[in-house]
Amino acid sequence: MAKFNDLVANIKNLDTNKMYNNDFLQTWKKNDAEISATLKTADALRDLRERNISTKVFDSGLGISIFRDNSTRTRFSFSSACNMLGLEIQDLDESKSQIAHGETVRETATMISFMADAIGIRDDMYIGKGTDYMHQVIDAVKGSNEDGILEQRPNLVDLQDDEDHPTQALADLDHIIHKYGGVENLKGKKIVMSWAYSPSYGKPLSVAQSIIALMTRFGMDVVLAHPEGYEVMPEIEDIAKKNAEKSGGKFTKTNDMKEAFNDADVIYCKSWAPFKAMQKRTDLYGKGDFDGIDKLEQELLQENSQHQDWSCTEDMMKLTKNGKALYMHPLPADITGVSAEKGEVDASVFDRYRDELYKQASYKPYVIAAMIFLSKFKNPATVLKQLEARGQERKLSEE
Amino acid sequence: MAKFNDLVANIKNLDTNKMYNNDFLQTWKKNDAEISATLKTADALRDLRERNISTKVFDSGLGISIFRDNSTRTRFSFSSACNMLGLEIQDLDESKSQIAHGETVRETATMISFMADAIGIRDDMYIGKGTDYMHQVIDAVKGSNEDGILEQRPNLVDLQDDEDHPTQALADLDHIIHKYGGVENLKGKKIVMSWAYSPSYGKPLSVAQSIIALMTRFGMDVVLAHPEGYEVMPEIEDIAKKNAEKSGGKFTKTNDMKEAFNDADVIYCKSWAPFKAMQKRTDLYGKGDFDGIDKLEQELLQENSQHQDWSCTEDMMKLTKNGKALYMHPLPADITGVSAEKGEVDASVFDRYRDELYKQASYKPYVIAAMIFLSKFKNPATVLKQLEARGQERKLSEE
Amino acid sequence: MAKFNDLVANIKNLDTNKMYNNDFLQTWKKNDAEISATLKTADALRDLRERNISTKVFDSGLGISIFRDNSTRTRFSFSSACNMLGLEIQDLDESKSQIAHGETVRETATMISFMADAIGIRDDMYIGKGTDYMHQVIDAVKGSNEDGILEQRPNLVDLQDDEDHPTQALADLDHIIHKYGGVENLKGKKIVMSWAYSPSYGKPLSVAQSIIALMTRFGMDVVLAHPEGYEVMPEIEDIAKKNAEKSGGKFTKTNDMKEAFNDADVIYCKSWAPFKAMQKRTDLYGKGDFDGIDKLEQELLQENSQHQDWSCTEDMMKLTKNGKALYMHPLPADITGVSAEKGEVDASVFDRYRDELYKQASYKPYVIAAMIFLSKFKNPATVLKQLEARGQERKLSEE
Repeated sequence: MAKFNDLVANIKNLDTNKMYNNDFLQTWKKNDAEISATLKTADALRDLRERNISTKVFDSGLGISIFRDNSTRTRFSFSSACNMLGLEIQDLDESKSQIAHGETVRETATMISFMADAIGIRDDMYIGKGTDYMHQVIDAVKGSNEDGILEQRPNLVDLQDDEDHPTQALADLDHIIHKYGGVENLKGKKIVMSWAYSPSYGKPLSVAQSIIALMTRFGMDVVLAHPEGYEVMPEIEDIAKKNAEKSGGKFTKTNDMKEAFNDADVIYCKSWAPFKAMQKRTDLYGKGDFDGIDKLEQELLQENSQHQDWSCTEDMMKLTKNGKALYMHPLPADITGVSAEKGEVDASVFDRYRDELYKQASYKPYVIAAMIFLSKFKNPATVLKQLEARGQERKLSEE
Repeated sequence: MAKFNDLVANIKNLDTNKMYNNDFLQTWKKNDAEISATLKTADALRDLRERNISTKVFDSGLGISIFRDNSTRTRFSFSSACNMLGLEIQDLDESKSQIAHGETVRETATMISFMADAIGIRDDMYIGKGTDYMHQVIDAVKGSNEDGILEQRPNLVDLQDDEDHPTQALADLDHIIHKYGGVENLKGKKIVMSWAYSPSYGKPLSVAQSIIALMTRFGMDVVLAHPEGYEVMPEIEDIAKKNAEKSGGKFTKTNDMKEAFNDADVIYCKSWAPFKAMQKRTDLYGKGDFDGIDKLEQELLQENSQHQDWSCTEDMMKLTKNGKALYMHPLPADITGVSAEKGEVDASVFDRYRDELYKQASYKPYVIAAMIFLSKFKNPATVLKQLEARGQERKLSEE
Repeated sequence: MAKFNDLVANIKNLDTNKMYNNDFLQTWKKNDAEISATLKTADALRDLRERNISTKVFDSGLGISIFRDNSTRTRFSFSSACNMLGLEIQDLDESKSQIAHGETVRETATMISFMADAIGIRDDMYIGKGTDYMHQVIDAVKGSNEDGILEQRPNLVDLQDDEDHPTQALADLDHIIHKYGGVENLKGKKIVMSWAYSPSYGKPLSVAQSIIALMTRFGMDVVLAHPEGYEVMPEIEDIAKKNAEKSGGKFTKTNDMKEAFNDADVIYCKSWAPFKAMQKRTDLYGKGDFDGIDKLEQELLQENSQHQDWSCTEDMMKLTKNGKALYMHPLPADITGVSAEKGEVDASVFDRYRDELYKQASYKPYVIAAMIFLSKFKNPATVLKQLEARGQERKLSEE
């Protein structure tokens, strides 16, 4: 309970005014207090749940999910977050809707929101498209709320766009904060965001970008490593640079995986498609040139196959600090000999860190719940105390 | 609160006995008191929600949806209605069920209803089939309840059949009642239900029919306009005629869109397929003659393309009362230059009325909730007062 | 209420310790006290619900369903069970997940379980595979809970595997117990589990096996009847034999349907595929030999068509005790002249027993709820009394 009180006291001192009745898109649009409040609120909600205290702040209401890409863990994380706050999940399955009928985003967004308090969207397939779409949804529901059409304004949670994966990166951050016993202990720690080989094509850049943009805010020594040609978006690199300067950390790039791994505290190792290729794909998609997309895919697969040595092997891990860096991955990973002949990581490395990886993932539902919570309450600290005082059991206790 | 008290007092004076433990299919099966009670209850439930008072009358229980045609807004309206009453939505996805296995409607209906309090069905594709199916479901669950198989009888809400679209028409009616400041002010107002061109084929007749059958009950001057050959069902025209006589209103038909629009107060403009063609399609469907259906489609598209001038253009709108008739549509609309090259309505007309159209749609969740509510309680007025007195917050208030 | 008190007193005297925080797979893994506690708890929960007393023991939390085969009634039964306990249903739709991405069962199971209290799985297609899969899921979530990754351990309910269909057989058992006025009255009653002709191929063996394995525990005279070649798994026959010896009942086999029906009290009549063929199919599946599977299917259909005389006809029913044996089926049935030209049962037989069949099915939601309930509470009797004392209304009562 001391822990809970500390968290609440902390949240009370953070300015969350701008989060109220607002949305959570990219982390770089949020200031440090807001990032901190999100993690503290996630921890406080988790603490309540662990003490069997209900965190239902809604007695009814909907949480809408829109997944424009397949998802298991983010889908269930969003569902879990809504459920623990008292919102019922409704998925907008675009294949069963009349959206093909030609209606606008503005219209659909309003039509599904009459009783919606939160909307979670994953749209990460085409550069610029996902973020665009989210802004269209936000403008629609905000406008419809102001015009008296919607009684409440549903607030949006970005469940992955084409640039950022905020719920992932914040769950990752919460994990390493707990690992190192406090955000202050991240200062100077070397974290490597490395590209890794996967036989599949065209994975989003957003995880890599979310990591370099977020971790540079805490004084970490952030290294981005990838083969030549696998650049991420220059705008995001700029954000990382500026964050590093401001926080007293570092942001460097290398095409040498070994150099990157050397003496690292944390290894984050994942495949992504080159930004330029993604942009080309987006252009082709815009023109409806699906043959062009297929051709591009062949080229990329060809290029991709040249870099099978970029893998988080046991040998590579030995290069890290005391050979014991924390290995991270957003999951699912392409594991050599398990889910792929050659993949992002050795099976033995993955197995050794399995529990850590699952713990890393366990923060996501709470991070999402915190984002919704902070968008709904002006005084989140007060409401958290109210919930504790209410003491409603999540599961009936045996007398 | 005065508003709420007025609504409750009103409902108290209406005889809703026959609605209790009953179903809501076509509006013409309900008497005036029942129609009125539905709208008043919808308004009262909305008022409670706007005051953050929970309308959950169920602590658990299911609301089952069966959509035999794609849907976004009706799907979410039903979900919202169930959620605000405390029922969890379960969709019967016929593609994931064993229904193809040859089981009867009677069996399926019972099997999904052990803990169901409400069932919402949309089945509007083939003349006579949708209503038939709904009656089969009703007979099944009623029988199973009487035989002691089901502990409660789920009550059915018709989310659109092949003849009527009651939740749509009642939401529309609620919208114009609010617009004109009371049902008494509808008397003498001219409302046009006009066919409009859409490039797509075979839209249900049910919206057009639901409008002429319902609006004639309130002394309105109802005009049905369509090109020759686009007749609706004669039975429904008869209902409209009788309603108009009884209510002191008018029901007229014309093949001249301009004549119809002249001096109109309300314009409802929408594509539908000719009744005779729909009946032919139903016959072909009955014979499993899918080639015949394709051929019929070609003929209809050919015929349809002759009527591109039937569109709610700016010029047409100028003919209406002061050029300012209220434009209505069930959405999504085929908008010229937006969702179709040539469509039902000019983009500028649609845009000018967008907020009104969305408000129109916003009544639907409450109308559905009211239908369920009235089927569940003998004394709806009393229960509404109970809910207000209970004062359970929908969203936790910050202290 | 006397009934409820009796049930609770009964449950109090049964040792359910091993059910706590455990899973429900095959019935033969549960001892007699555990089987009895499941049925009594199902009846007690039903009694509470019939008295409009809420059985919600969770204020939030998820119940996850995984259906690897189509399902209507089991799906809705699981949904209903979760809902009445306060868990929101989330379906893991493997086609919308990233499971194809190559992740392990261990990973998926953990990732969906952060806020899950129950998991229901149906996986009955390939011999040995379903049970295997369930054990993998159990091991995963148990391990993840012990390792501090999951705050609670979701408990698994087997919604049908390739060997057993425990929720079906227990619902069936509860039905005949109520029919005969007590489990003690089952002693000596003759129940026939007979194969029946259906034009479709490869139905699971699990219902037949679940019936012979469960009903032999209560002193019944259990007869397994099928054409030569339609043997069930020898291991399950062994279980049935041992159960019959222990309970003072009988377990016999015959290839003569008439002999089986003679003087029977209960007739359970259903198609299944021969165990050996199912094993062969499983082997072919393991090798990815889909041509082989097709060829096997043709052979089996050919063989199958030889046994159209195995049907529960009126003439067959006349052979049973006073011509009035209780006819049972897990539904949906292949009814001659209704859902198949020649099927498992005559339409007139089916119609005469329709109400009974639906009542039989009505026990399933409560049986599943009981399984979850017993996995969640150390002292189920106490909690049932707590629920009654709490007296929360399921549906708001009109004052």
